[in-house]
Amino acid sequence: MDYSILVVGDEILIGQVQDTNSGFIARQLTPYGWQATTIRAVADDSGAIFDAIDDAFAHSDVVLMTGGLGPTKDDITKPTLCRYFGGELVYDPPTARNVEQIVAGRHLPLNDYTRAQAMVPSSCRVIQNQCGTAPLMWFERDGKVLVSMPGVPYEAETMLVREVIPQLVAHFSDHVDIEFRHMMVVGIIESALAMQLDSWERSLPPGIHLAYLPQPGIIHLRLTGQSTDAQWLKAEMDRLAAELHDRLGKHIVADEDLPLAAIVGRLLRQRGLTLATAESCTGGNIAHEVTRVAGSSEYFLGAVVSYHRQVKQRQLGVSASDIDRYGVVSQTVAEQMATGVCRLLGTDCAVSTTGVAGPGGGTPETPVGTVWMAARCGERMLTQCRHIPGHRDRVISRATNDALLLLLSLLVDSE
Amino acid sequence: MDYSILVVGDEILIGQVQDTNSGFIARQLTPYGWQATTIRAVADDSGAIFDAIDDAFAHSDVVLMTGGLGPTKDDITKPTLCRYFGGELVYDPPTARNVEQIVAGRHLPLNDYTRAQAMVPSSCRVIQNQCGTAPLMWFERDGKVLVSMPGVPYEAETMLVREVIPQLVAHFSDHVDIEFRHMMVVGIIESALAMQLDSWERSLPPGIHLAYLPQPGIIHLRLTGQSTDAQWLKAEMDRLAAELHDRLGKHIVADEDLPLAAIVGRLLRQRGLTLATAESCTGGNIAHEVTRVAGSSEYFLGAVVSYHRQVKQRQLGVSASDIDRYGVVSQTVAEQMATGVCRLLGTDCAVSTTGVAGPGGGTPETPVGTVWMAARCGERMLTQCRHIPGHRDRVISRATNDALLLLLSLLVDSE
Repeated sequence: MDYSILVVGDEILIGQVQDTNSGFIARQLTPYGWQATTIRAVADDSGAIFDAIDDAFAHSDVVLMTGGLGPTKDDITKPTLCRYFGGELVYDPPTARNVEQIVAGRHLPLNDYTRAQAMVPSSCRVIQNQCGTAPLMWFERDGKVLVSMPGVPYEAETMLVREVIPQLVAHFSDHVDIEFRHMMVVGIIESALAMQLDSWERSLPPGIHLAYLPQPGIIHLRLTGQSTDAQWLKAEMDRLAAELHDRLGKHIVADEDLPLAAIVGRLLRQRGLTLATAESCTGGNIAHEVTRVAGSSEYFLGAVVSYHRQVKQRQLGVSASDIDRYGVVSQTVAEQMATGVCRLLGTDCAVSTTGVAGPGGGTPETPVGTVWMAARCGERMLTQCRHIPGHRDRVISRATNDALLLLLSLLVDSE
Repeated sequence: MDYSILVVGDEILIGQVQDTNSGFIARQLTPYGWQATTIRAVADDSGAIFDAIDDAFAHSDVVLMTGGLGPTKDDITKPTLCRYFGGELVYDPPTARNVEQIVAGRHLPLNDYTRAQAMVPSSCRVIQNQCGTAPLMWFERDGKVLVSMPGVPYEAETMLVREVIPQLVAHFSDHVDIEFRHMMVVGIIESALAMQLDSWERSLPPGIHLAYLPQPGIIHLRLTGQSTDAQWLKAEMDRLAAELHDRLGKHIVADEDLPLAAIVGRLLRQRGLTLATAESCTGGNIAHEVTRVAGSSEYFLGAVVSYHRQVKQRQLGVSASDIDRYGVVSQTVAEQMATGVCRLLGTDCAVSTTGVAGPGGGTPETPVGTVWMAARCGERMLTQCRHIPGHRDRVISRATNDALLLLLSLLVDSE
């Protein structure tokens, strides 16, 4: 099924707000075989919105629209939708009750603006917003569907997963069952993996296919199956997933699409291990990635960001003479930081980084982008040096990723 | 000047990669009075790219295209550009030399793929890529301009700032000078600020206007002036900026468009103060934001992420009985964390957070989203409690922002 995404909002076009909704929508729908033909952002302007809807329907049967809703924007978007789909703005009591509930839950007074959100086009079916005041609206015309959703990412994401995507898939599918199996693979590069799976992949039954979704240092394999025979499909998918496990063994580190920090976290929890980080050039970003995972407090005890040399020495016990001798960006300092934070916070495992994020601070021996990192688990330790090209943010985020990969490989090897 | 942004890449349409280039372009061009009429993403498909270029030129005189370049994509995009603008692919020696230099600088061998990047449409003018192998291409037809740029954000951003935007502005401006003045304003809400500046704003001379760009807790004011009389413009902009300073006084915390952490960092550096963070629910994200700023090592010494209660007690010296009595998410724990990290790392200032990021861990007294935060500077301390709605990532990022704002208000008040 082809679809279009339409993002409405002046704030997107001036670059004040980064649109993340379209990527979220695409990630949710791609596995169902739904294909975005275009993603388009237009201003809060009636003519622009009208033309963009028309153009989108010329190329696809479904338009998913985000933004352009809310107290200050309704007066443009809703009349435009009425103009396109017919009908007029009417007061909708269930929407009014939902708006009242949401506003009351936030301990805010109901004002004229929020009250006006209960006015919806008579040509739509409302999907009540469970986390905000702007109602979602489902329009149909000539077998085509437009769903209008709020622009606030938290609201759009929640409602997409809970209501919009299940309703869309049900609306357009002819009772075809869809099953997914996900595997996260490390320790093998994409081309080698593709060669290893080549004959297996070509023997897949009709309706089942394998997708490679590479990320830095990790490959997300997604097996998608479609069939009218749900029972056969489930058994076949289980069989194929087991075959992949046989072929890839320890390279498979998770059977779900999870961020790296969540994979690491799951392995730590399964083995009852605790983690700390000791960070210099990553400045707390590894701890941040680890703690973005819900439930990380079960295994993550804390971190020391030792930006200043004194903090490395005093809190983490790094040897001053080693810093003088080998430099602050060195293998031994990375090792001593990891060991030091394990001792300080009493954890089983640690990761550490010391490097030059730039743009200043580079030397001929240690240019900008040089990062030493260590991972420790019990008495075992791995270290590596990376040279990461790019600007400061890129060095920080790639060093964060690579340090977590290092810890992951240590955890996988110790199985 | 109206323009369109065209983002090319399958990876965008399946949601695997988040497009950040379009927002970057818009943020750079908006201040020049350039207006994006549409931002559009299409697949690596010749027909889709051709139609999207045609459609974009129907609505604007300039198309800025990112992506669709690079060793594996050139065979679609470049022939499509030839088809649209005429000409054929020709070997371009300066581009070949640039590719060789870039590849040599990365200590990689030159292979057939990278070598092929020296083939460019004869109808374009090449702008040599200073940080990658894919050449930028400038096309003109009937007075309209298309610039094709690589999709890698680091390359696109660098080349936009260094070459593309200066060349575009020069190409289309009739010797009009443009000046900007930026001010970051805190401690006053947007509507109050707009009322306070209302009459002043209406008295601005022709060609000069004020834009409000609100962010959470901080408002970016941008004064843009255009004139053919450069000398008059500069003097007038200086006079108006001084008037804004007279009117807003200490509410203005920076005269540049800077992220919050950079504003805080600048004030710390100006006063010779040092900073540490003590973080529970923000999990290191405040330290991460602080250290994203180049040069932060001048004032940021380090952080303790005290995720586990024991780390709060042992490293930061938070009283165990106070935790038992008031709860770990409490004013006194936030205060003791800030004080503790100042003492531990020997800094003048600190910020701290303790809260429930969710989705688990909430109680009726301390629901998910409750965050206590403290800012300390010398002997002065400010604390506040925030109730942040939304999912875990939102609680973390908003708490990070609010904690930095708290420190900023402490620094401003102590002037």
